Amino acid sequence: MLDQIVFIAGVTVLGVLEQAYFSLQVIYARRKFSVSPPSTSGPPGFERVYRAQANCSEYFPLFITILWVSGVFFSQGLSSICGLLYIYGRYLYFKGYAKSAHGRLAPLYFSAKVLWVLIGFSALGILGFLCRSYLGLDVVQLASAA
Amino acid sequence: MLDQIVFIAGVTVLGVLEQAYFSLQVIYARRKFSVSPPSTSGPPGFERVYRAQANCSEYFPLFITILWVSGVFFSQGLSSICGLLYIYGRYLYFKGYAKSAHGRLAPLYFSAKVLWVLIGFSALGILGFLCRSYLGLDVVQLASAA
Amino acid sequence: MLDQIVFIAGVTVLGVLEQAYFSLQVIYARRKFSVSPPSTSGPPGFERVYRAQANCSEYFPLFITILWVSGVFFSQGLSSICGLLYIYGRYLYFKGYAKSAHGRLAPLYFSAKVLWVLIGFSALGILGFLCRSYLGLDVVQLASAA
Ligand SMILES: N[C@@H](CCC(=O)N[C@@H](CS)C(=O)NCC(=O)O)C(=O)O
Ligand SMILES: N[C@@H](CCC(=O)N[C@@H](CS)C(=O)NCC(=O)O)C(=O)O
Ligand SMILES: N[C@@H](CCC(=O)N[C@@H](CS)C(=O)NCC(=O)O)C(=O)O
Repeated sequence: MLDQIVFIAGVTVLGVLEQAYFSLQVIYARRKFSVSPPSTSGPPGFERVYRAQANCSEYFPLFITILWVSGVFFSQGLSSICGLLYIYGRYLYFKGYAKSAHGRLAPLYFSAKVLWVLIGFSALGILGFLCRSYLGLDVVQLASAA
Repeated sequence: MLDQIVFIAGVTVLGVLEQAYFSLQVIYARRKFSVSPPSTSGPPGFERVYRAQANCSEYFPLFITILWVSGVFFSQGLSSICGLLYIYGRYLYFKGYAKSAHGRLAPLYFSAKVLWVLIGFSALGILGFLCRSYLGLDVVQLASAA
Repeated sequence: MLDQIVFIAGVTVLGVLEQAYFSLQVIYARRKFSVSPPSTSGPPGFERVYRAQANCSEYFPLFITILWVSGVFFSQGLSSICGLLYIYGRYLYFKGYAKSAHGRLAPLYFSAKVLWVLIGFSALGILGFLCRSYLGLDVVQLASAA
């Protein structure tokens, strides 16, 4: 059982570590630019780091959720690889956004594409499972026979 | 095994798609009202769309978490229906909030009620399981015998 | 199967209840300080409550994710205890931050430490599982034999 989720679990831990790293960067930026809580506004250099972490936090639950559905219903291996790519894309997003607002765009498009792939995998996995279980059709087998 | 979670997984994918849709709406609103990141303040029309998505993102992890606990420990069918209602409620919330701050209230109360139902299901499911496993009491059977 | 996750599921429901409680506090603070949505700025007393809930919401997905990985791959009992400590730490954080910005610090460090423990448990659990499954090494047994 656990061997079917262990790699996704590993990618999940890496994702949590990355979020922890982003949070620490916000704490350092608060010190560097003297922006004390509860304030969240300050010089652009601070606001970009603050927003980069906020944006990654906002997408984190979407990422983890779809990573697991895709990993359980479609393929653990492919989902884990996508997961690593997403985490890497978010790292580039954070670094890029911290430098300039424009720097966030390319990595954002990249990580959004990876997310769409995971959404596609999840949909395929669930539909394939429903076809097999309730219609007795093995779509993958049909496709390779055709 | 998977047949016990496949419908919840399906509802989860719909929930992720809805969040992706809300994010795209914020991106369009940023263009329409010319609010460039990292800024998040602008005309009320922008701020309502921005906050609508932020509020839905904030509740998304609570929703997914409790959907799964309720689906696994209480009932997959009932939880999936509640999940669909919640997703629909959040769609109305987003549309309502985008139009006027007041427009968010009715759908907010609705989706909060659905969330409370899922919390209740989860609590019942977990307590019922503990009673059956550790006290040897089947609460559902007792209730129907009474 | 379910007996291996029932306590983590219980802690999860408590975590969701806590977040619901924080959200209600923001709604009350909005009334008390007359800060109507979509605005999120107001007197410091409001902004601290608003940010306290925002910060807890931001960490909630990290907490739940790592709680489950740790509970499934390391130890349900220890992870549940850490989960309860985290929830308690976040309660103190919220109360402390609502009173003064400084009041958030001690509970923040505490809950961050608990999160690091859960991350450590998760990493150990996953690595231990991989060693047992793919290298045939039982690390725990080796350690106790040494
Ligand atoms: N979003 C957080 C990320 C980093 C963090 O967790 N910071 C701690 C220590 S400065 C905190 O309590 N932040 C207060 C807040 O988020 O309002 C922030 O803006 O500070
Ligand atoms: N919360 C996001 C939702 C949409 C989104 O993900 N936008 C992308 C492209 S404009 C982004 O990088 N936003 C920057 C940010 O969130 O600060 C926003 O405010 O923009
Ligand atoms: N983050 C929320 C927490 C509480 C909440 O969910 N409030 C409801 C009723 S006032 C809402 O629709 N808030 C609007 C918003 O978050 O922009 C807030 O700032 O209000």
